[in-house]
Amino acid sequence: MENFIWYNPTKIIFGKGKHLQTGEITAEYTKKVLLVYGGKSIKATGTYDDVTNSLKKAGVEYEELAGVKPNPRLSLVYEGIKICREKNISFLLAVGGGSVIDTCKAIAAGVCYEGDVWDFYKTLMVPEKMLPIGVVLTIPAAGSESSDGSVITKEDTQEKRDCCCDLMFPKFAILNPELCYTLPENQIRAGGADILAHIMERYFVPNENTDLSDRLCEGAMKALITNLPKVLENKKDYDSWAEIMWTGNVAHNGLLGKGRLDDWASHGIEHELSAIYDIAHGAGLAIVFPAWMRYVYKEHPQRFVQFANKVWDIDTDSMDEDTACLAGIDACESFFRSIGLSTRLSEVGIGDEKIPLMAEKACASRMLGSFKKLDSGDVDAILRSAL
Amino acid sequence: MENFIWYNPTKIIFGKGKHLQTGEITAEYTKKVLLVYGGKSIKATGTYDDVTNSLKKAGVEYEELAGVKPNPRLSLVYEGIKICREKNISFLLAVGGGSVIDTCKAIAAGVCYEGDVWDFYKTLMVPEKMLPIGVVLTIPAAGSESSDGSVITKEDTQEKRDCCCDLMFPKFAILNPELCYTLPENQIRAGGADILAHIMERYFVPNENTDLSDRLCEGAMKALITNLPKVLENKKDYDSWAEIMWTGNVAHNGLLGKGRLDDWASHGIEHELSAIYDIAHGAGLAIVFPAWMRYVYKEHPQRFVQFANKVWDIDTDSMDEDTACLAGIDACESFFRSIGLSTRLSEVGIGDEKIPLMAEKACASRMLGSFKKLDSGDVDAILRSAL
Repeated sequence: MENFIWYNPTKIIFGKGKHLQTGEITAEYTKKVLLVYGGKSIKATGTYDDVTNSLKKAGVEYEELAGVKPNPRLSLVYEGIKICREKNISFLLAVGGGSVIDTCKAIAAGVCYEGDVWDFYKTLMVPEKMLPIGVVLTIPAAGSESSDGSVITKEDTQEKRDCCCDLMFPKFAILNPELCYTLPENQIRAGGADILAHIMERYFVPNENTDLSDRLCEGAMKALITNLPKVLENKKDYDSWAEIMWTGNVAHNGLLGKGRLDDWASHGIEHELSAIYDIAHGAGLAIVFPAWMRYVYKEHPQRFVQFANKVWDIDTDSMDEDTACLAGIDACESFFRSIGLSTRLSEVGIGDEKIPLMAEKACASRMLGSFKKLDSGDVDAILRSAL
Repeated sequence: MENFIWYNPTKIIFGKGKHLQTGEITAEYTKKVLLVYGGKSIKATGTYDDVTNSLKKAGVEYEELAGVKPNPRLSLVYEGIKICREKNISFLLAVGGGSVIDTCKAIAAGVCYEGDVWDFYKTLMVPEKMLPIGVVLTIPAAGSESSDGSVITKEDTQEKRDCCCDLMFPKFAILNPELCYTLPENQIRAGGADILAHIMERYFVPNENTDLSDRLCEGAMKALITNLPKVLENKKDYDSWAEIMWTGNVAHNGLLGKGRLDDWASHGIEHELSAIYDIAHGAGLAIVFPAWMRYVYKEHPQRFVQFANKVWDIDTDSMDEDTACLAGIDACESFFRSIGLSTRLSEVGIGDEKIPLMAEKACASRMLGSFKKLDSGDVDAILRSAL
């Protein structure tokens, strides 16, 4: 087992009706916030009214920044920084999913920095101070509600980059599974793929002798795979949503990867895809991950045999190693397809024109991955195999 | 799934050689500590020298309180409080296992309280302020290094009571599996039983529909069961110790029980046993737990069928429900015996004389458990079945 640090100070407040307590929870930290959200959906569902009424009731003032879009943009981050400075705001409240939370994190870092916040995403600088943030989560997917990272897209250069540090952990995150009832199906599917990918990035590692992390990853994957089809069947299935929401959090709070390397090549490749084509991150991952698996599995085939057996219940004892590996990968791709996700670029209208560009950008500053180190030639081959 | 809060701010610094960084890690918080430990063992193993040299190198002054024993005593807590007040100490550093850490937590609460610290353990008061503490863990067992609880024994009345609150979380805990190489076998066995019990207290619950928590618990039990025999075979097996130490932490950091009730009846019963007979907590649990299981399993038999199948790999499909439940319980008891633990009171020289007293004390202020609510008559029956 590799040496590691495990630290996650975010308080998760989980359960039915909990977003109605946003005001009193926030009031423990501040009396004025910048409320950051996407747009129509939280107003249509009533979440906006629930949260703002709760803030008012608790005597918490708020300014607003709406308009966060998937693959959140740097330009809106600049706008948020300006508002915080002008209105003297020292706490941000994200009401939404990963894009809203990541926008909040970027604003929170930018407000406390004299230079350009993009410096942090170019890894030229590390945030030394940040405003604290709180979260009301409306979609389980990104895991950003208790992660130390933020991913932002710079529109003019089509660069999608991340920044990670301990200061990025939210102070609290309110997770009410009832808020998931109104999610559109495409978001449910993509969110599910993102959660599964967060676990798989921590599962496909070159290390051996990491029993606990393996078992925790397999358990979390099982919980997701079991419950995701149930909410697509019945969008008001509270217990299944609760499993998905809690799994989505645990999948990305850092715990499941302790004691070994992570991979993150598939995430890296997908970031290039969604930076250029603006498809949902999870939808992109459902395409990239199976292609990545087939490209790399021979590096450590036993890990893929284990995946087939422990996650997909495939009787691998009766197969040769190669067949067992591919059976697990096929099962994973079939799962994505069974919940309605595409697993080929051509199915979402993406051709090969920009593959060389994406491969170049993905590996511009470093090799990708740890299970197998990938250069731009490898990324090119993976993307072509996914056409 | 039940509503819950998940919060654990303790920073875990895990790995080879990490205790040699105690000084620099501590120096981030304070320049003077009360060093609390047991006695001979950390001096014999060199851990005492390693830690104190590291403190000196980092410019951290220290006072000392030695003499913590298993089932830690209130009298030593009073002594620690006195030292902290006299020497103006505002940070405690525990070097040891659960007893040392729990003593530190009690001192840390007592220093900041004008009344008797035992008030907190009698649940007459809740700590409103505590000194911060750090930990260098020398035995994986109690999980106190990142738990919110402390268990102390009041010698004159033979009362063993706990106190839990968010302030009890240590600021940091340093976990170096190499420090386990020198543990005596009886401590390894008892520690293992304690870890397994921490998971089982969270696994045997009346709730249904908690897939993720079930899978995480099963994974953690598997990791422990796989690795404990390995370190009894080879006490310098780093990777297996790393699994056990990390599992011991995750088992009791609060995560595995989220979204449902815990039970804790077996812990409650065992506390009476070790308060009177002063046997190791884990050794007592190996006796109490199988007896508790056989007494309660019919309340929710499917959970015990699942335990047999998922944890002990028993082919429960080929059995009737009752047989499957008992097969799992037998497997658990056999595991305890296979690693050298007694599972009967008579084997550790305990008769039936004080069973009525223990049963009475265990249920003096409340019913025990949630899987099945137990009164003193139930506890009496469970203890008699373990004779």
